[in-house]
Amino acid sequence: MHEQVKEVLDAYSDGGFTAMHEMDLPFPSLTAVSAITGSAFTSGVLGHWVLTQCAANLLKAFGSPDLIAKYHEPLTDGRWTGTMALSETQAGSSLVDISTKAMPTETPGKYFIKGNKMWTSGADHSMTENIVHMLLAKTPDNKISLFLVPKSIVNDDGSLGERNDYTINGVNHKMGCRGLSNCYWSLGDNSDGATGFLIGEEGKGLHAMFLMMNEMRIHVGLSAALCGKRGHLESLNYALERKQGRNPVTKEKETIVNYADVKRMLLTQKVHSEGALALCLLASSLADSAKTSEEDKHVLDVLIPIVKSWPSEFCLEANKWAIQVLGGYGYTSDFPLSQVYRDNRLNMIHEGTHGIQSLDLLGRKVAGPGFPLLIERMAGCVERAVKTGDDEIVPMASQLQSAVERLVGVTKKLGGVGKAGDVQLMLANSHDYLNMAGTTVIGWLWLEMAIAAKAKSSDSSDSFLHGKVNACQFFMIHELSKTQHQARLLESLDDTVIKTKVEEL
Amino acid sequence: MHEQVKEVLDAYSDGGFTAMHEMDLPFPSLTAVSAITGSAFTSGVLGHWVLTQCAANLLKAFGSPDLIAKYHEPLTDGRWTGTMALSETQAGSSLVDISTKAMPTETPGKYFIKGNKMWTSGADHSMTENIVHMLLAKTPDNKISLFLVPKSIVNDDGSLGERNDYTINGVNHKMGCRGLSNCYWSLGDNSDGATGFLIGEEGKGLHAMFLMMNEMRIHVGLSAALCGKRGHLESLNYALERKQGRNPVTKEKETIVNYADVKRMLLTQKVHSEGALALCLLASSLADSAKTSEEDKHVLDVLIPIVKSWPSEFCLEANKWAIQVLGGYGYTSDFPLSQVYRDNRLNMIHEGTHGIQSLDLLGRKVAGPGFPLLIERMAGCVERAVKTGDDEIVPMASQLQSAVERLVGVTKKLGGVGKAGDVQLMLANSHDYLNMAGTTVIGWLWLEMAIAAKAKSSDSSDSFLHGKVNACQFFMIHELSKTQHQARLLESLDDTVIKTKVEEL
Repeated sequence: MHEQVKEVLDAYSDGGFTAMHEMDLPFPSLTAVSAITGSAFTSGVLGHWVLTQCAANLLKAFGSPDLIAKYHEPLTDGRWTGTMALSETQAGSSLVDISTKAMPTETPGKYFIKGNKMWTSGADHSMTENIVHMLLAKTPDNKISLFLVPKSIVNDDGSLGERNDYTINGVNHKMGCRGLSNCYWSLGDNSDGATGFLIGEEGKGLHAMFLMMNEMRIHVGLSAALCGKRGHLESLNYALERKQGRNPVTKEKETIVNYADVKRMLLTQKVHSEGALALCLLASSLADSAKTSEEDKHVLDVLIPIVKSWPSEFCLEANKWAIQVLGGYGYTSDFPLSQVYRDNRLNMIHEGTHGIQSLDLLGRKVAGPGFPLLIERMAGCVERAVKTGDDEIVPMASQLQSAVERLVGVTKKLGGVGKAGDVQLMLANSHDYLNMAGTTVIGWLWLEMAIAAKAKSSDSSDSFLHGKVNACQFFMIHELSKTQHQARLLESLDDTVIKTKVEEL
Repeated sequence: MHEQVKEVLDAYSDGGFTAMHEMDLPFPSLTAVSAITGSAFTSGVLGHWVLTQCAANLLKAFGSPDLIAKYHEPLTDGRWTGTMALSETQAGSSLVDISTKAMPTETPGKYFIKGNKMWTSGADHSMTENIVHMLLAKTPDNKISLFLVPKSIVNDDGSLGERNDYTINGVNHKMGCRGLSNCYWSLGDNSDGATGFLIGEEGKGLHAMFLMMNEMRIHVGLSAALCGKRGHLESLNYALERKQGRNPVTKEKETIVNYADVKRMLLTQKVHSEGALALCLLASSLADSAKTSEEDKHVLDVLIPIVKSWPSEFCLEANKWAIQVLGGYGYTSDFPLSQVYRDNRLNMIHEGTHGIQSLDLLGRKVAGPGFPLLIERMAGCVERAVKTGDDEIVPMASQLQSAVERLVGVTKKLGGVGKAGDVQLMLANSHDYLNMAGTTVIGWLWLEMAIAAKAKSSDSSDSFLHGKVNACQFFMIHELSKTQHQARLLESLDDTVIKTKVEEL
């Protein structure tokens, strides 16, 4: 790791931000703080601490008192970092295919682990004195279980003991996210196995992981949203200063922010990134309330694939436009735009690819109780918007209403195809469905923001508040309207993709 | 430069490929050969030799016999490379604002040049013994003129003489296209000026450059198309081998090419990159026939902003999906996908940004004689398609016909707004217009390909030929249909972007 990454991480933990996660603060507050600290250095700050926090949470939820006593505190005070070691070379999206084996020893809860892991973020570095891996492996009966595998094993007196037997075999040379290492490694090459401690029960590994999954997927969406917003702000700053070309009337050199196409690129970034951020804050809030409200839990379930995916695709698009505002300068490392663009490209891939999220949404989630509840909440927003009687809000209420109706219609039609037994046809264009559902949800959140802005002040000269209303209008006209095309495609049950022969690709 | 770049360039010129440009071959043949050689290493091969060839062509077209004798041959036999030195720090898209000055000397045609240049591709390297810059500077009467500025000045006996007085001040650290340096440099810091030789007449610099512009813009489109096609082939290879997850019926490990969403990603890449390549070949052909046909010249004029832009935007999108097919592997340098993605991002920027191309198309070109001719040619294709009476072709003819009618309608409506004096409103959504026109043109070329494939064989088991028909169907249903949404937006004369206040961005 570049030595400056350690400086950043130290500043983060010295500032008390790692401890923040232990303070029982509302999740949306954590998300909001992460948004500010993380946007400065998404892979370095957000990457390391999200992983560490997830590892700490898993340990606290399922670990034995002895393991918690030894390993939990250093993960939460910023002394150590944590990882999630799930994938293997042959098992990325398909975790049931992992081949790493865990053999029980005579000591209860202690196992010897042999095998290999791939794509482990933060798997090794020298920035902290210990690293704690949360690792999936199969016990002899082939059950997938969760283990704590420390870099250095903690002695009973709390001191650091022997170095565990695993070997970092290499670093994956990623296009971006260079503030966080990513390694392939093998366990137990030089012994009976690396030492691992069972977390929870044997065979409950995937179950435990899935409890973390929602949180991790919100963080991926957040990371994408932050890259989007960072790009928006950096390119806006540039556009406000850069002069190029001539004003057609005055013939003076023109500041580029005044050109229509530059405004389009900035507005696109604004609606994508602020819409995505609103979605992440909503999901964070639901993750809290889901603990006491079954309804909120169901709504969150249906939103999760959207939270993971929509920001990842559309804030990458936003970063494309951020570079474009700067022209050649955006393509160089003199400005941070090419970095956020490279960083952001990862978010469509990790924690479940787009394709997998779209199958989760259309093939599973929308058939559950969360979907009608989500529709109800969107319809409630439409109703409140109409009641404002506001000249700018009411037309947008009707745009959202149409989009929600389209989503309901398409979902019903596709659900019918699935129920009739043709699951393959139902899922043939699931990526378009994911985008359509996501764009509708973001349209809803923009309308909520516009209503809130208007409620604060209807004075259109308040540029922050009216900027929200204006951005909402832009989203409705330029983005939400695309769901018409998507709905038509989905309702036509087009089977071009599935009928395409492999040799014709 | 990495030393392997020189090996590649040497192999290219040793193979006689640089000489190819002097053989009066049809331009489409050159494009086709460049497509094969260039796709292996777009920035290194295509970048260096397109620039060198453009420099050689400019010299041949406008240079004095003495300059041609001294500088032309080494540019065409691969001994030297050439550059186009246009932009300056304050003058990127707006070349009239350049400030580099050229003072005449006592020797006719010889000038002393002082100033600076920015974004010069291939401005310096040690791979060849000389570099020849085609450089724009202003003569004392403020006229923009074109100069040949050699790195080493050629003596009368043909030997290399003194090193010219310019200084490379730095390299622009680009996100991609690392096979081609890009520098900022200053001329005449240590003397009365760097030596430059006038090419053509004083004040005719931009005119000369514009004659090269069409060719350079076709090459940008080609470069984007090649990145797209390279990504398609690499990700197809991977998808044919990689196993992940289970077949829902057999429960065996499944090769990922069989998943619907992977097929979608491969088909999207195929239609974007092969459509873009067809467009570049058409434009190359028109560039030849334009020399004898006024009509072809007009059609080429209207196509040029599309050739430059559509491949650049949609083949970048294709590369996004190429990475996605590989998942995490696509994000690493173990595979070439992240490289082509980084490389391709430049194409939306250089040789006139997207924004500028869209103004050129909608604000100028479609009002000229080329647009009705283009429409006529597309209508002719529809007619031929209908006449085939083929079950697969006829429905696509009707899809294209609707799209062409939409384009005509939108163009007429926007033209009317412009004629009524509201140019700002006409151009408010010019980027959407550029995409709509481009997608319609690519739809046309796909239909041409499908007709040609069917004419060769209507046997659907010929997977190459029927793959073209199938890809055309995919394009019509999944891509061309988007022009409905774009047409609605454009016809609504939406002014959200232009009415947005700068403080609301």
